[in-house]
Amino acid sequence: MSKYTIGIDVGGTNLKFGVINSTGKIVSRFRLDTKRYLRSKVKLIDALSQSVLDVIAEKNIKTKDVLGIGVGLPGLINSKAGIVNLLPNIPGWKNVPFKTILQKKLKIPTFIENDVNLITLGEWKYGAGRGVKNLICMTLGTGVGAGLILNNEIYQGEGFVAGELGHMPINERGPDCPCGGSGCLERYVGNKYLMEKAGKIFKNKNIRLEDVHDLASKGNIRAVQFWEETATHIGNGLVGVINLLNPRLVIIGGGVSNNYKYMSKTINKIVQKRAMKVQAKMVKVTRAKLGDDAGIIGAQVLVAKNIK
Amino acid sequence: MSKYTIGIDVGGTNLKFGVINSTGKIVSRFRLDTKRYLRSKVKLIDALSQSVLDVIAEKNIKTKDVLGIGVGLPGLINSKAGIVNLLPNIPGWKNVPFKTILQKKLKIPTFIENDVNLITLGEWKYGAGRGVKNLICMTLGTGVGAGLILNNEIYQGEGFVAGELGHMPINERGPDCPCGGSGCLERYVGNKYLMEKAGKIFKNKNIRLEDVHDLASKGNIRAVQFWEETATHIGNGLVGVINLLNPRLVIIGGGVSNNYKYMSKTINKIVQKRAMKVQAKMVKVTRAKLGDDAGIIGAQVLVAKNIK
Repeated sequence: MSKYTIGIDVGGTNLKFGVINSTGKIVSRFRLDTKRYLRSKVKLIDALSQSVLDVIAEKNIKTKDVLGIGVGLPGLINSKAGIVNLLPNIPGWKNVPFKTILQKKLKIPTFIENDVNLITLGEWKYGAGRGVKNLICMTLGTGVGAGLILNNEIYQGEGFVAGELGHMPINERGPDCPCGGSGCLERYVGNKYLMEKAGKIFKNKNIRLEDVHDLASKGNIRAVQFWEETATHIGNGLVGVINLLNPRLVIIGGGVSNNYKYMSKTINKIVQKRAMKVQAKMVKVTRAKLGDDAGIIGAQVLVAKNIK
Repeated sequence: MSKYTIGIDVGGTNLKFGVINSTGKIVSRFRLDTKRYLRSKVKLIDALSQSVLDVIAEKNIKTKDVLGIGVGLPGLINSKAGIVNLLPNIPGWKNVPFKTILQKKLKIPTFIENDVNLITLGEWKYGAGRGVKNLICMTLGTGVGAGLILNNEIYQGEGFVAGELGHMPINERGPDCPCGGSGCLERYVGNKYLMEKAGKIFKNKNIRLEDVHDLASKGNIRAVQFWEETATHIGNGLVGVINLLNPRLVIIGGGVSNNYKYMSKTINKIVQKRAMKVQAKMVKVTRAKLGDDAGIIGAQVLVAKNIK
């Protein structure tokens, strides 16, 4: 008998829901505008629970056929205790026992995890990383981060904050980063900084990264160069991680990875040239496969891992 | 009944032997000059086996009271299969089934591991890292490397070469490194480069790092600065690892760590200033405790872990 998982991806813009079957396929979806619920923790939790009930009812699924709920949240999540320690961009969330609250409301086993780790679990089990024991899943967006699968497990670190690849300095002297550091990779390839740079290059403050993508696809040399320079920074950052962690695979995901075809060659060239021979020979860099669904599909992996 | 382990540390200069009891104490030691045995693989193996027999006989230990032999080797070691894949500085060692060879000769269970990982196991179980779940043990010498204890296990990576902290680039454009990369941390703080730098600063080609240590201890400003600059590079390199792996502890070992008291303040200042808040708050940087014995003591940990 097939059991279902409910995946929830709490993003800054959308609350995304999915019903996932036991083979990792999304059989139903639903989304809410996050901003309507940002002001109040209680409202957000109520909306989440009600939506779970709605999505189950709509598909005629019985509660007993739901294996569990998996929730990805953008912040510092103690997944073991089920506590949201902090959501930097959603006020009022500090040390909230979210797992227990949802479980009590819904009487369904609930598990929570950092959103990047959930994406990583999805890509690992059902996407670009199938069957790989050691991989880095990098997400390129406003934030630049990574999930680490080491020895077939998400590696969380001492305080559940491992994977901050965007805050590996790539230069000893570099631009200041809002994290408090300087020269961080995110300061070179995070969305905000890429947009600023594009604005200057194309003398257009309102240019979007999608526009630079379109320009590159039409062969605009400055746009092609823009992505190659971005790829150079990404490659330089990856070299250190590859030498340190000796992974089999690096998966590149997140919005900026839509430009992977303009970056792939440069990233790979740098990794092959600059990383140590054994490490370079062993590693493959590839694009993520599940796109926006990765987090929701990862919820199935999280739940299945914890229930059995 | 107390069981003994035989620890062997194969270095470029010495073959060090130790008999370790079940609480990690070295009860007997012995060393051979490595260079006498470098030319022939067979000679090295014979010398190792004979020395194990000698060291056991000398202490009146019965073979049945030897739990096992643990060997640390400077190179690429497949510890799972017991194969020495490559020793870069000892010719003739390529894909040697060293574990099987020694076991057949001595009829004692034998385990092999990369030397830095063995040092890490020693420091973790009996030295500066006791009881810590996630730590980085950095070794500063001719080579700069690290062993990673993640979730209470040595993390080896896909091909047993994880931990190459010395080859994390700390600058996008930096000096070429013999590894094929550039801007690697080792190019700033490896012994050879430190000696070159000291030679220039003190206008003395033959100056040793011990001399720069002594000068610093006498308050020589250029010597103090020399160690502070070294510490700055080390700190800058550690920031990335700390943000990525969120360890509880970073242990600094190897010969250059003899100057830790001139580097400690700067390393800690940089980590606290430049690493992310949660990571920085959680991590401690400290000096290794076991000195030259770490590898031999680590052999006990390796053997005990594998036999039970």
